[in-house]
Amino acid sequence: MSSDLHGNAPDNSSVVLLLVDVISDLEFSGGEVLAQHALPAAKNIAALKNRAIRAGIPTIYVNDNFGKWRSDFRTLVSHCIDDDTRGRPIAEILKPQSEDYFVLKPKQSGFYSTTLDLLLKHLGAKTLIIAGFTGDICILFTAIDAHIRDYQLILPSDCIVSQDMNENATLLKYMQRVLEAVISPSSELELPPKIVRREMQV
Amino acid sequence: MSSDLHGNAPDNSSVVLLLVDVISDLEFSGGEVLAQHALPAAKNIAALKNRAIRAGIPTIYVNDNFGKWRSDFRTLVSHCIDDDTRGRPIAEILKPQSEDYFVLKPKQSGFYSTTLDLLLKHLGAKTLIIAGFTGDICILFTAIDAHIRDYQLILPSDCIVSQDMNENATLLKYMQRVLEAVISPSSELELPPKIVRREMQV
Amino acid sequence: MSSDLHGNAPDNSSVVLLLVDVISDLEFSGGEVLAQHALPAAKNIAALKNRAIRAGIPTIYVNDNFGKWRSDFRTLVSHCIDDDTRGRPIAEILKPQSEDYFVLKPKQSGFYSTTLDLLLKHLGAKTLIIAGFTGDICILFTAIDAHIRDYQLILPSDCIVSQDMNENATLLKYMQRVLEAVISPSSELELPPKIVRREMQV
Amino acid sequence: MSSDLHGNAPDNSSVVLLLVDVISDLEFSGGEVLAQHALPAAKNIAALKNRAIRAGIPTIYVNDNFGKWRSDFRTLVSHCIDDDTRGRPIAEILKPQSEDYFVLKPKQSGFYSTTLDLLLKHLGAKTLIIAGFTGDICILFTAIDAHIRDYQLILPSDCIVSQDMNENATLLKYMQRVLEAVISPSSELELPPKIVRREMQV
Repeated sequence: MSSDLHGNAPDNSSVVLLLVDVISDLEFSGGEVLAQHALPAAKNIAALKNRAIRAGIPTIYVNDNFGKWRSDFRTLVSHCIDDDTRGRPIAEILKPQSEDYFVLKPKQSGFYSTTLDLLLKHLGAKTLIIAGFTGDICILFTAIDAHIRDYQLILPSDCIVSQDMNENATLLKYMQRVLEAVISPSSELELPPKIVRREMQV
Repeated sequence: MSSDLHGNAPDNSSVVLLLVDVISDLEFSGGEVLAQHALPAAKNIAALKNRAIRAGIPTIYVNDNFGKWRSDFRTLVSHCIDDDTRGRPIAEILKPQSEDYFVLKPKQSGFYSTTLDLLLKHLGAKTLIIAGFTGDICILFTAIDAHIRDYQLILPSDCIVSQDMNENATLLKYMQRVLEAVISPSSELELPPKIVRREMQV
Repeated sequence: MSSDLHGNAPDNSSVVLLLVDVISDLEFSGGEVLAQHALPAAKNIAALKNRAIRAGIPTIYVNDNFGKWRSDFRTLVSHCIDDDTRGRPIAEILKPQSEDYFVLKPKQSGFYSTTLDLLLKHLGAKTLIIAGFTGDICILFTAIDAHIRDYQLILPSDCIVSQDMNENATLLKYMQRVLEAVISPSSELELPPKIVRREMQV
Repeated sequence: MSSDLHGNAPDNSSVVLLLVDVISDLEFSGGEVLAQHALPAAKNIAALKNRAIRAGIPTIYVNDNFGKWRSDFRTLVSHCIDDDTRGRPIAEILKPQSEDYFVLKPKQSGFYSTTLDLLLKHLGAKTLIIAGFTGDICILFTAIDAHIRDYQLILPSDCIVSQDMNENATLLKYMQRVLEAVISPSSELELPPKIVRREMQV
């Protein structure tokens, strides 16, 4: 009813961490191979997310709705964990906390037919750290849409995987060249302490 | 990850019922007056929704997120009911059922920065029955956006209210004239039985 | 090919003048009545545009393409003037100059399926002065879409007309109440001299 | 003013030929190399376009505005040809004809902040043949946005070039794998004769 978004003000941060499709049952063709690549990446993502929390950087889960238009995000999380799916260990490591944001996306790009761009505007985001699966599809599509909207991109290379890791590497290089994304292992990203500033020094 | 929306196919129906902002705590200036108009309308909406269910017409709750970007729809429903808010009696009458769809909107129009249009496309919707609050703002904005996207509009006049009921009447007339909306008491809308067809005969 | 919009930088101005549908042949049902209301308004708009030029405020023609998808804006202008249409006197008074911008819109709202919002972002626009025809349809639709995107609105009342001037007045009042638009005769709008600042003092 | 797009009905065709950024002065860093690859491709595109005309397939020029927000498409064409630019020979070969459509895009993707999708909907397009420059940026971005909107894609491999032809090949293969694009030399595409049907048999 109201257009005022400030009643319950969201955090404000020029840097935002996007986790793409980390909640999935992986119950599709190729999901088994992807799970093998995704589990170690999930551990890196969890560590990165903890550092982001300490630095005051909010996390947005940008997640496929897998065609389940009636489900909300919490139902998807429960399904992945409680139904003992291939994606369960990853979902357990990365399950959302109360302060996280989430956006369900019906297609590959997190920006297509979602409220992501408006949420980022209200957070004051300028720089997006994007992590998750898969590097060669949903992360590429989302990163292109972010670049076209003038966001700066940081892609932690050990937090992004695909079924075919050669394709993953090819497309990371592509995003570095064309989208001017910073590609770096997550351990080498400097997330500043919260008190100093919410800006990233990269 | 997947772009396939057909895995868990949504219902298919050329007519869809949109309930705009029916879940609200009404804890804002003017909310008390609105609540008085909204309670009888809510009863009419509930009856209309039951008829829609019997006719195989799906319902989409298109609801303000009230600036609570971290909440999902079910949390909003619980807040309205469990926290004993002004909007509680209405939320109890109209609380969503498991087969309903929902779209959280950050602004007045249900189409702005949401997945509503894509959901309607996947349902195969051509005609929207729009009910809820308030007629002079969120329903008008949503109806204009629906008209511009070539949806046919049906506005059940006893299911749409505003704080100022004169304004409500003025804008219903406007929508009839400019958006070519069918305006009719809900009891006079003919919802065909499910077996015959999912088309509406108006 | 390039995403760089700065090569040939557009003007920068926090205030922008939008002229909605002022170029039209008016060769449609009701166009004769509209022409009678529109001609005096066109003179007011021309005066306002001249003041805007002196104040460094850019003008964007936001104009219907009238289903002529293959035409550009200059072709529409030529058609209205050279083919001696009902809209000729208005088009002559308001024909675009080389420093004006233009956006062809396929539907009523200037924002729907056009590049208007991106152009406004690149101009740095915060406040839109909207003038043209008709107040009860294309200007209302455009103003609602502008409000939802957080632009401030100024509506010069003697520069906005509709076929039915009562409806025009009703919807101006609506835009004042709901969209918080400033409604004022154009002569009372203070457009600051260019040198001082490009901000509007209203 | 009118929302009716049928007054001057556009062609209707399930297959549409998109020419991406073929009108350019190429006066930017790397433009010289690109011109060398683009000239032979332009000849192939011209031949393909002629076949499309004979088959009743409309052509849409989807072209960068190069930051010149005040220009229309015809002005861009004149600039490229009359100012004797690097892109002149290509613009001469591919200059638009009166029955062609055009869409100016402010960024890399033809769908971002333009009316392209609405125009394609009105043409009834289901399948897009995309040709032009460059394969690794504007064509990739446009193809991804087309795929996400459920268009079928045909990419004539001899009509798509980039500065770095290895990257061009890599991304054509990517579009084949992920976007399910048909990749084929233009001479091997079967465009059906107009009389039979406007559907493509590939």
